[in-house]
Amino acid sequence: MSVLIVGSVAFDSIETATGSDPRALGGSATYGSVAAGFFSPVQLVGVVGEDFDQENIDLLASRGVDLEGLERKAGRTFFWAGKYSEDFSERETLTTDLNVFADFQPHIPESYRSTPYIFLANIAPNLQQMVLEQTDDPMLVVADTMNLWIDIQRDDLLELLRSVDVFVLNDEEARMLTGETNLIRAGRRLLTYGPSRAIIKKGEHGAVSLTEDSYFAAPAYPTQDVVDPTGAGDTFAGALMGYLAAHDSASEEVIRRGLLLGSVVASFTVEGFGLDRLREIDEHAIEQRYRELRSYCTVE
Amino acid sequence: MSVLIVGSVAFDSIETATGSDPRALGGSATYGSVAAGFFSPVQLVGVVGEDFDQENIDLLASRGVDLEGLERKAGRTFFWAGKYSEDFSERETLTTDLNVFADFQPHIPESYRSTPYIFLANIAPNLQQMVLEQTDDPMLVVADTMNLWIDIQRDDLLELLRSVDVFVLNDEEARMLTGETNLIRAGRRLLTYGPSRAIIKKGEHGAVSLTEDSYFAAPAYPTQDVVDPTGAGDTFAGALMGYLAAHDSASEEVIRRGLLLGSVVASFTVEGFGLDRLREIDEHAIEQRYRELRSYCTVE
Repeated sequence: MSVLIVGSVAFDSIETATGSDPRALGGSATYGSVAAGFFSPVQLVGVVGEDFDQENIDLLASRGVDLEGLERKAGRTFFWAGKYSEDFSERETLTTDLNVFADFQPHIPESYRSTPYIFLANIAPNLQQMVLEQTDDPMLVVADTMNLWIDIQRDDLLELLRSVDVFVLNDEEARMLTGETNLIRAGRRLLTYGPSRAIIKKGEHGAVSLTEDSYFAAPAYPTQDVVDPTGAGDTFAGALMGYLAAHDSASEEVIRRGLLLGSVVASFTVEGFGLDRLREIDEHAIEQRYRELRSYCTVE
Repeated sequence: MSVLIVGSVAFDSIETATGSDPRALGGSATYGSVAAGFFSPVQLVGVVGEDFDQENIDLLASRGVDLEGLERKAGRTFFWAGKYSEDFSERETLTTDLNVFADFQPHIPESYRSTPYIFLANIAPNLQQMVLEQTDDPMLVVADTMNLWIDIQRDDLLELLRSVDVFVLNDEEARMLTGETNLIRAGRRLLTYGPSRAIIKKGEHGAVSLTEDSYFAAPAYPTQDVVDPTGAGDTFAGALMGYLAAHDSASEEVIRRGLLLGSVVASFTVEGFGLDRLREIDEHAIEQRYRELRSYCTVE
């Protein structure tokens, strides 16, 4: 099965304590698509400007990403510049130039409208809602978000969640949206907003997945060499989605394996700037770390 | 097999956002002993004052704790008062009255000197060292510590670690001692100090265990009702030790199960003030949560 992924496509300028990349290919949909593309065909919906070069188009295409839904508009591509603290625990935004993204409205091509797996990568919840209005009875809708939308579009986000099956967000966002400091309570509260499953990302501590009657703790792959955490969460969710689509299932069992694969793909993401590491690896590298990670959480 | 546990025995005055206990039985050795006592016989070495009432003696004895090594001295028992922030992420010490603990020097009774499993619960590293000087060729030495000793007795701690098999500490302490912000790097660095295994406790995120050639991520039991986190780490390590002694093994397999049991016992600890919850439960309650926790981290 295919995954439809809608979100931002951007150029990022990233600065860390040990290096920088002034123009990394980024954006939630880009990261999500490349990660999902390791597992299943991807249909990408987003917008880019005239400065989005053929090299990037080729990269996405080579990863099995269908680009019919990638609009090209007059102007420049969304640009974000940020700087991480030495231990990566804080991130400061230096520049946000929305450019062609400023008036982006997702248009879902006819051929994507019945795609069964939909990943609403991080963009404004009202735009995520527009995607659902243009699609037919999907098998599974997974949505990500960020602190900004919880802050300024909380009502739109809560409205969206009524139509979402799996809600993916990080621990800080889960606490912020629910007002619960205890993460298990926060997770249970998220389920009352509509989704049947909440997946809470915890960075180096992995992720937890909750439903009414299940709980799963996915470990992070133990990474010693973090270069740039940008896109880790997007690739985590993207890999999960690709795996679910590949197996045409959102059973607990398949989701658990998908969460470990999400941890694995995210562990590669953080080892380079932007998509640098994901460009280098193949399915075998993923498979090898997946086996390792399973051994790291197996109790005989 | 038995476990020898040496550490502090105290009365704690604990204040949280939702309640308080002005005189909870506490101390690293007390928590560790009660937790270990669910699994194996325990020999406790520590010191108390004249105010240590028979009720507390009886409690420990009823948990299978041998008290030959518990010295009673003129004066009052070690007293600590602290206050937690609303989300339990911060703890302020209000009072520390060392009392009879001020000149404590562990004396290991003759009958304890060949005990194969030794848990050096959190006390000053020079006192922990004195224990090892009085014991014969133990099978396994596990040591815990705290930020205070890393701060003021760093050299003694590093000296101790040369004789320790398993070093247990929390993530903040691991980063503080090694100077590494990446937790995996911090764990690997700890192994260069002497221990063949480092176990890093991460509170609500569980714990990780590292050796030269193994890695294991133990999830926390998902607790919704945290009342008082005091003693969680001590009972985590105590339960692990009791389980290892009960199985007379420190194999990877047994340690992994022991870590899950540590998570389970710690999850009960935090549900009440001091030892309140641990007094109520039995092996069946532990077994039930253990089965749940295993299901929460099983990937088919």
